[in-house]
Amino acid sequence: MSQHAPTDRTRLRRMGHKAAHDKATIHAILDACPVAHVGYVVDGAPHVTPTLQWREGDRVFWHGSAASRFLRAILGTQACLTVTLTDGLVLARSGFEHSISYRSAMLFGPVQAVTDPAEKEARLKEMMDQMFPGRWPQLRPMTAQELKATTILTMPIDEASAKISAEMPDDPPEDRLWPVWAGIVPLETRLGTPEPAPDCPPGLALPQVKFG
Amino acid sequence: MSQHAPTDRTRLRRMGHKAAHDKATIHAILDACPVAHVGYVVDGAPHVTPTLQWREGDRVFWHGSAASRFLRAILGTQACLTVTLTDGLVLARSGFEHSISYRSAMLFGPVQAVTDPAEKEARLKEMMDQMFPGRWPQLRPMTAQELKATTILTMPIDEASAKISAEMPDDPPEDRLWPVWAGIVPLETRLGTPEPAPDCPPGLALPQVKFG
Repeated sequence: MSQHAPTDRTRLRRMGHKAAHDKATIHAILDACPVAHVGYVVDGAPHVTPTLQWREGDRVFWHGSAASRFLRAILGTQACLTVTLTDGLVLARSGFEHSISYRSAMLFGPVQAVTDPAEKEARLKEMMDQMFPGRWPQLRPMTAQELKATTILTMPIDEASAKISAEMPDDPPEDRLWPVWAGIVPLETRLGTPEPAPDCPPGLALPQVKFG
Repeated sequence: MSQHAPTDRTRLRRMGHKAAHDKATIHAILDACPVAHVGYVVDGAPHVTPTLQWREGDRVFWHGSAASRFLRAILGTQACLTVTLTDGLVLARSGFEHSISYRSAMLFGPVQAVTDPAEKEARLKEMMDQMFPGRWPQLRPMTAQELKATTILTMPIDEASAKISAEMPDDPPEDRLWPVWAGIVPLETRLGTPEPAPDCPPGLALPQVKFG
């Protein structure tokens, strides 16, 4: 997410890109970003598919249709799951020093399926609880057929790394008087106004939503 | 991005997920989403790295440091570049029918480098023009050393597909009277208030920004 060239230690410091491997940092990034991109290999070729992930302790989970080619192709393989939050655009005095303020986490590991029906339902409830607190008991209960039609995959948060860049532009001294605006333009993701379904009767309480 | 099980044609219709392969749809999704996740294979293992992409005609481009392990690993290989816009959360009366309103495009192809210095500069100018219209001529000009330190990679938009889901929840008739709110909660990404760098003098014009 940057075009910086790490030619020396000074430059690396100036980049403001921090690599991290501690669990707290990686968990915080995963918890802030439900949208993940999962990479896997089919017939030697890389594939990247978007999905929603949620974390429980030291594992991430995602789910989909049991008929999904993506989920069938990835089960039992080594995959890479990456989440990225783009927090802002970093504008410098030269094109070269422009960059992105971002947080990303990359996980590598073996993909397993959750197969026990009761455990599957517990995982789906947890996903719902994280995103829509209090909604699960209000819903029409899951059926055995729906549980069967849903595949849940999981990967350990074991081999993982994070990258964080959150610095102001750091132009070299000779550029700092160049007469062009420099700074950060934040990027913000927020929830919009809920739009009820046409067949949703009035008077029902709006859901609590926590997305990231 | 959905747990729907496509068990029959009716269900497929109800899913509201449209696959598309036409250029106009794919170009529009790429143009709306500069953040891409690029998948590649190193020693047989999938890797997924975030980057910024920009489109020119029938090609996408991305760039980074010439010292980047990611860029060196992917050059000359077959890669997968995926962009995903999450437009909203789709809340139904059952957990099973919950889904995401999203647009994604997935590109497969060989990765090549742009090597000619003049062409590299033209591509970087185009990236800047798309994101910050009018800013390039205001910047301290690129140096030959900076161009050399910047790698630009490109992939044709040739083998590509898109998926779009933008439908209201479509609960089966027997669920529609279940007394829980149903509809879409939009997700919106917007630019925040620009934060000038501490060493940015007052009075300089704010940049035009077009991110997606």
